[in-house]
Amino acid sequence: MSDALDADLYQRVQQFYAEHMRLLDEGRADEWAAGFTEDGEFAQDKRPEPRRGREVIAAGLRATAAKLAERGVVRRHWIGMLSVHPQDDATVRTRFYALVIETPAGGQPVLHLSTDCADVLVPDGAGWLIRHRRVHHDGR
Amino acid sequence: MSDALDADLYQRVQQFYAEHMRLLDEGRADEWAAGFTEDGEFAQDKRPEPRRGREVIAAGLRATAAKLAERGVVRRHWIGMLSVHPQDDATVRTRFYALVIETPAGGQPVLHLSTDCADVLVPDGAGWLIRHRRVHHDGR
Amino acid sequence: MSDALDADLYQRVQQFYAEHMRLLDEGRADEWAAGFTEDGEFAQDKRPEPRRGREVIAAGLRATAAKLAERGVVRRHWIGMLSVHPQDDATVRTRFYALVIETPAGGQPVLHLSTDCADVLVPDGAGWLIRHRRVHHDGR
Repeated sequence: MSDALDADLYQRVQQFYAEHMRLLDEGRADEWAAGFTEDGEFAQDKRPEPRRGREVIAAGLRATAAKLAERGVVRRHWIGMLSVHPQDDATVRTRFYALVIETPAGGQPVLHLSTDCADVLVPDGAGWLIRHRRVHHDGR
Repeated sequence: MSDALDADLYQRVQQFYAEHMRLLDEGRADEWAAGFTEDGEFAQDKRPEPRRGREVIAAGLRATAAKLAERGVVRRHWIGMLSVHPQDDATVRTRFYALVIETPAGGQPVLHLSTDCADVLVPDGAGWLIRHRRVHHDGR
Repeated sequence: MSDALDADLYQRVQQFYAEHMRLLDEGRADEWAAGFTEDGEFAQDKRPEPRRGREVIAAGLRATAAKLAERGVVRRHWIGMLSVHPQDDATVRTRFYALVIETPAGGQPVLHLSTDCADVLVPDGAGWLIRHRRVHHDGR
């Protein structure tokens, strides 16, 4: 059931996602979008077309972050149940669940979204760039 | 407090659980039950008797998956706070928390269950089989 | 974006936190506080002053555990989105999110708290001691 897989690879993917999701949650749009390839694609089943390219991906986050700031909401993205599958062409395919947790100012956290995700990562030095991300929203 | 433990072992257990929980959440009963030994035991404190053997374990999932499908609910099992303890007899004991998150069609995700779990794993090639699982449900 | 980092280090930090959070959730105050250095500091933005030293840190947990027991509530701390940053002086800085999940007797689990945390760890044999912890509560 499990591929033989080196622990170093798995760890580097874990740390990459930890830093990637922190940038997202802090609304650091350009740094976050820099985690995609120049022509990266970000597809979500709630949108008919994927977002393509760092500029468009960053603009999407900026719009979302502005709306959250206006509402006084902090958002946290959690990744779990990560499986990592190295491919023969040096890319790495990952599968993971992601939760979006929202906390309003002065309020309790709530589960905003439960999702099932798949990425294609390409090596970038010791780190990674996301060439393709697909997000399925549970409940759709 | 921490055993000296090799990173490779920890990673192989993480990936095993990621794939195991995905099979569970996708209702793939036979593939999921194949992650237990032939005579595997699955004990939950809400049931007086453990489920024993792959056939019985798979049948349990089929029944649950049918009920969830009827209600239009997607379930996700998340594992966290995993500790891995290799034993002298080549088995591995694990402790972990597990959450069950449910999303109804068109609705918001909810925390269905918080649990505390312990497994006994036996090596199976690069992967694992579960010989024994014990699940405690919080709030009981 | 990701430091080159050895997988063994990352794994040892993961297992440390799994065991550390379990001691916390089981109310084992002295064992849990022993995971801090003698002069460890535990700062939370809801308190004007950090807790300093194992005695004070343990006393804080004993008080909290007593209140939870009285209310019949089980609490689980989950850590996620962990990044691990070894320093030149052999300490390790970590960043992570933490959730607190509460389950009342006979009830459903609820998200009690979403937080953003930073630790300074010092090596202690194969394990770690926390020299400093800073916890930010979302929604404040």
